Amino acid sequence: MKENYEIFESEMNELFENKSYKKMRELIEDTPEADTAEYLQTLETKNALLVVKLMPKDLAADVFSYIEPDYQEQLVGIASDEEIKKLIEELATDDAVDMLEEMPANLVQKVLRNANANTRAEINKFLNYHEDSVGSIMTSEYTSLKSGMTVGEAIEYIRKVSYHKETVYNCYVLGERRKLIGVLELSDILGCRDDEELIENLMETNVIKVETHDDREEAVRLTQKYDLFALPVVDSENRIVGIVTVDDVVDVIEEEATRDIEQMAAIVPTETPYLKTSTFSHVKARIPWLFVLMLAGMLNGVILGKYEVAISALPLLVTFMPMLTGTGGNSGSQTTATVIRAMTLDEISLRDSFRVMWKEIRVALIIGVTFGALNFARIYFFTDDPDRVMMGLVLGLAMIFTILMAKTLGAFLPLLAKRIKLDPAVVASPMITTIVDVVSLTFYFNLAMVLLGHRI
Amino acid sequence: MKENYEIFESEMNELFENKSYKKMRELIEDTPEADTAEYLQTLETKNALLVVKLMPKDLAADVFSYIEPDYQEQLVGIASDEEIKKLIEELATDDAVDMLEEMPANLVQKVLRNANANTRAEINKFLNYHEDSVGSIMTSEYTSLKSGMTVGEAIEYIRKVSYHKETVYNCYVLGERRKLIGVLELSDILGCRDDEELIENLMETNVIKVETHDDREEAVRLTQKYDLFALPVVDSENRIVGIVTVDDVVDVIEEEATRDIEQMAAIVPTETPYLKTSTFSHVKARIPWLFVLMLAGMLNGVILGKYEVAISALPLLVTFMPMLTGTGGNSGSQTTATVIRAMTLDEISLRDSFRVMWKEIRVALIIGVTFGALNFARIYFFTDDPDRVMMGLVLGLAMIFTILMAKTLGAFLPLLAKRIKLDPAVVASPMITTIVDVVSLTFYFNLAMVLLGHRI
Repeated sequence: MKENYEIFESEMNELFENKSYKKMRELIEDTPEADTAEYLQTLETKNALLVVKLMPKDLAADVFSYIEPDYQEQLVGIASDEEIKKLIEELATDDAVDMLEEMPANLVQKVLRNANANTRAEINKFLNYHEDSVGSIMTSEYTSLKSGMTVGEAIEYIRKVSYHKETVYNCYVLGERRKLIGVLELSDILGCRDDEELIENLMETNVIKVETHDDREEAVRLTQKYDLFALPVVDSENRIVGIVTVDDVVDVIEEEATRDIEQMAAIVPTETPYLKTSTFSHVKARIPWLFVLMLAGMLNGVILGKYEVAISALPLLVTFMPMLTGTGGNSGSQTTATVIRAMTLDEISLRDSFRVMWKEIRVALIIGVTFGALNFARIYFFTDDPDRVMMGLVLGLAMIFTILMAKTLGAFLPLLAKRIKLDPAVVASPMITTIVDVVSLTFYFNLAMVLLGHRI
Repeated sequence: MKENYEIFESEMNELFENKSYKKMRELIEDTPEADTAEYLQTLETKNALLVVKLMPKDLAADVFSYIEPDYQEQLVGIASDEEIKKLIEELATDDAVDMLEEMPANLVQKVLRNANANTRAEINKFLNYHEDSVGSIMTSEYTSLKSGMTVGEAIEYIRKVSYHKETVYNCYVLGERRKLIGVLELSDILGCRDDEELIENLMETNVIKVETHDDREEAVRLTQKYDLFALPVVDSENRIVGIVTVDDVVDVIEEEATRDIEQMAAIVPTETPYLKTSTFSHVKARIPWLFVLMLAGMLNGVILGKYEVAISALPLLVTFMPMLTGTGGNSGSQTTATVIRAMTLDEISLRDSFRVMWKEIRVALIIGVTFGALNFARIYFFTDDPDRVMMGLVLGLAMIFTILMAKTLGAFLPLLAKRIKLDPAVVASPMITTIVDVVSLTFYFNLAMVLLGHRI
């Protein structure tokens, strides 16, 4: 569809130059909101604002919700109170909250001052939810039916309100005091051929739902497990307060995967897109872990310092170091990444800890013994050092030990982190690599002192 | 909802023991399909099959589509031809195809032999799509309208067919020879108050769509950009052949993220869940890269071997190695992970290559100079070696060089891989770490020979 967007962009530019505003408006009305938003961001803000004003206000709000936060901020900065008033009343609550969460306080004030009392109260409520909670991703526009309605009445009602809801495809049936008593799909209602049938006879009473303060990952899990388009959100008294729609769930999934990847790569998680992040912010996200891991590397240096005599006498020992620590680090990373990902995808839980550890130990033994034997054979057959048996044993045994330790720790630490309610990704590969380096080098040099002591 | 499932499981177990089959059937009908599927997988296959037979056949097919592939295989293995016939005719095409893709050939034959000619032809067509193509994730159950229909006729038609479609919420308007000429949402139809209005006056003619052979990532990109629930799939002549629904897009997103993470961690991507993967399969997924990287580590050993004299004379040099190569490896991983993730999320494209490289170079210079200066200062102020200035310069300069090279390569290699149409994740961190090790150690020891030559 890239081509479609490019045609649209050049047509718009031409119309804009010729000041053909009526034609621009017609073209925008035939174009997906996301494309119009992309186009606006190629313009100077004052021109973008001019184009926004051409659109009917509901369309303008839809387009606005697709614009990147920093550009939204610039637009709000130069917009008049009147323009902001129109915008904020038309934006869906979740889109308004997304926008305000990223804005500096003075602009938040400017926006809220122009919202009417209801909207303002609603937005303030949403802004108070923790950013990892279901409340932070829900929307308050949903379709509710009363249990006493018939199929015919429900269809009539939905036809009347459908333009004001984020979705009408999942309908929530409310009992007394807005309590959620059932759910049904619009297709269930339409598919019922009897207009006099009661909604409460069609609805599903076993409702899959979340509470506002639940972790948003719970909403992700349920949406995926049950293949839902929308998930109702209730308060502690089972009164419906909003819904989470699948497009917001998709965003959470992407964010969580990015966070896992960043933590695996020793980066402090950020939320802005790559090119929108300043050089200095990139530095700030990368320097902390890099510094901690450099200090840990110094610790390795201190340990090696204790073996300076051995190194001077047998520099051959040093030549095997990169291979040994490298293989250890990679073995540990493999296990940690696998275990963390399996936890994110809910494939394993803490109950499975022993099965996971046992599996990793078996995998490590198979790989360790294979690689240990290969290294022994390589030294035995391809070097002519008089101590080649002992040298081969030192390297081979160190290899087995290193892989076994790397994979055991690589599984144990993320499980432990989860158990004590830390984010498992915090103990991801870089930290494990460092621990593995320290322990394996200590083992390697001590073994060398024992088996090759006569040379040192 | 875990609690709900657990109550369901214990109730079912009790009913099963008492052989209260009628009550079981009632309970299942009130339970989400995914939960029933989870329950079946706790039973022996012959008991599970017995429970399946209690359900109406459309419900049985829905439940079946939530069962894990290996358990599906066992069930099909023991099911009679008659049972398979009922199942295969009720399964949505994409679910049937998902199941058959994982099955051994003899079971595929058993299933296809029981399908009627149309179903068989349909399934065979789908089985031929490449696993990364849109065709492999589409379903052929969609709702199509004719352009001449009125709103009233469309609603009447949808109410008639809605139970047989995966979704009725996106309606596709077909012109002559099934060509896709427009799309509209069910809410657009319901929201139109004039039953005599023509569908073609309401539909959007600027259709966002994909072709069967497009990469499935294109379907992901469009679904996310335009917040779609379903995306139409057309053949090369713009005839509609199916749709991709958002729940399948979510699965693709998870799979792609898992693949990125596995490749970053030097694992050959697998598709089975952690605990369902045998120890031997885990070994098979991990040993290839570990072996290649071990060979690369040996290369490092060969390089170090050339400096044995320097190592014997100045073992202090060795103590800085882990810190230097560790920081280099981590710097490279940070950049590679960031760049690969930004490409997956479409935040950067090849057109941005120079901007990305330039940003990484600036980030690397800031971090490199900081860390270089810190290391110089540490050696200058905290050691009393007579050559501490030269020693500090060797380490400080090597640090700057290593970080700069690691981040430059870390950005360049994934961009290059994308350019020559390799998966960028293939050149992910472990490979870059190894290259960085080799180059940085060579630089470090050569610099030491120059600046500290009198000691060696």
